[in-house]
Amino acid sequence: MNVKPYRKDSFYSYTLGAFPTIELLKHHASSVLKIYLHTSFKNQEVIAMINKLRGKCEMSYNDKIIEKLSSKENCYVVAIFQKYSMTLDLKQDHILLDNPSNMGNLGTIIRSAIGFNFHNIAIIKPGVDIFDPKVIRASMGAFFACNIVFFNSYEDYQKEYSQHATYAFMLQAKKQLQNVEFPFDHPITLIFGNEATGLSSNYLNRNSLIIRHSSEIDSLNLPNAVTIALYEVAKQKNRQ
Amino acid sequence: MNVKPYRKDSFYSYTLGAFPTIELLKHHASSVLKIYLHTSFKNQEVIAMINKLRGKCEMSYNDKIIEKLSSKENCYVVAIFQKYSMTLDLKQDHILLDNPSNMGNLGTIIRSAIGFNFHNIAIIKPGVDIFDPKVIRASMGAFFACNIVFFNSYEDYQKEYSQHATYAFMLQAKKQLQNVEFPFDHPITLIFGNEATGLSSNYLNRNSLIIRHSSEIDSLNLPNAVTIALYEVAKQKNRQ
Repeated sequence: MNVKPYRKDSFYSYTLGAFPTIELLKHHASSVLKIYLHTSFKNQEVIAMINKLRGKCEMSYNDKIIEKLSSKENCYVVAIFQKYSMTLDLKQDHILLDNPSNMGNLGTIIRSAIGFNFHNIAIIKPGVDIFDPKVIRASMGAFFACNIVFFNSYEDYQKEYSQHATYAFMLQAKKQLQNVEFPFDHPITLIFGNEATGLSSNYLNRNSLIIRHSSEIDSLNLPNAVTIALYEVAKQKNRQ
Repeated sequence: MNVKPYRKDSFYSYTLGAFPTIELLKHHASSVLKIYLHTSFKNQEVIAMINKLRGKCEMSYNDKIIEKLSSKENCYVVAIFQKYSMTLDLKQDHILLDNPSNMGNLGTIIRSAIGFNFHNIAIIKPGVDIFDPKVIRASMGAFFACNIVFFNSYEDYQKEYSQHATYAFMLQAKKQLQNVEFPFDHPITLIFGNEATGLSSNYLNRNSLIIRHSSEIDSLNLPNAVTIALYEVAKQKNRQ
């Protein structure tokens, strides 16, 4: 297989590192095309775990390919996988990101999402390329436990998921996150805007919420804001 | 002035962008050596604000220097400033970071800290170079509102700030953040470890706390964990 550095129009992407490779194999083993190990990788425990999970998927040593794909020195495992499509679970809570523009941020949000039991993310286009290895790397492999689906518009999303109670996080909102009681009898959607521009005022009637902070900063960093909201929801649900 | 790209041993550092430059002038105008504007920068409102804040500090147009220091295309203002020393406020709440290793993470933590009214950060060495422009950029200028001081060891910090009630965030902890009532009659210190290694077990007797998350991830991203803790403290203090 002639593996080239990732491009958005590649039909495949790849993991860089053992931990995300294990997550890939756990969740999407059938999409894996090839696993490469570096000859200097000696962690027998990890190799045994990959061997157990990979089934019939090919694995071989190939330092050249690993060094071509990874600029970091300590990358010893790479798995090439075919991009796959996902669907959102109708009955579960969602995060909706309207045009997220930073790959590292998206990966970090996915990591927190999985950490607080949100497994479904809707993205309103354009948004970044979710299969870019930078997203997967920042997610620490949590990417593979997450369903992510693109929508052309918020209206398109809402048509399909009209049962979800929506909460739009925006600086113009009056109600504070800490004063909300989230429902437990139907799923919710936490909505966040672009890093630079936030959400348009069209979202103000979707239960708009603010995470209050001092006037010394313009806004919280997007992954931090999302994570606070996830933490608050998880806290309420665990109290049930 | 012959301005070279930043190095750790430079006696100066610099801001990249108008917003952090304004924050620098608000908090440390006397340390500013020179302000450079790009000839294509036409935002008269921002130029007027910088003019008002800069006092006697020199300002001139110099596209070459700006392009040499900033790899980003949309950087129109750069301010060179002399590194300054800071002290922690004995009566205020602190964050203590034991050997933070990522500059973007540190900047993001500073942004959240200022957003939740924490203006004092102790760092246990080694830790990253706090004056690196990458830290300042990730902080969105909040860096200049923050006091940051290095200590050789936790013991050295504690000798000076023995009145602070300490809370060490670690995965081995039993008590959950959400079940803590923070004291209001004396200051607190929230303690976090290195991105990869966390805090050593020596910290277990410093009121160790955990932010509970699912077993599907190994840990939360460091800035996200710090921000959750800051949010929880701020929420309790606002309820007083």
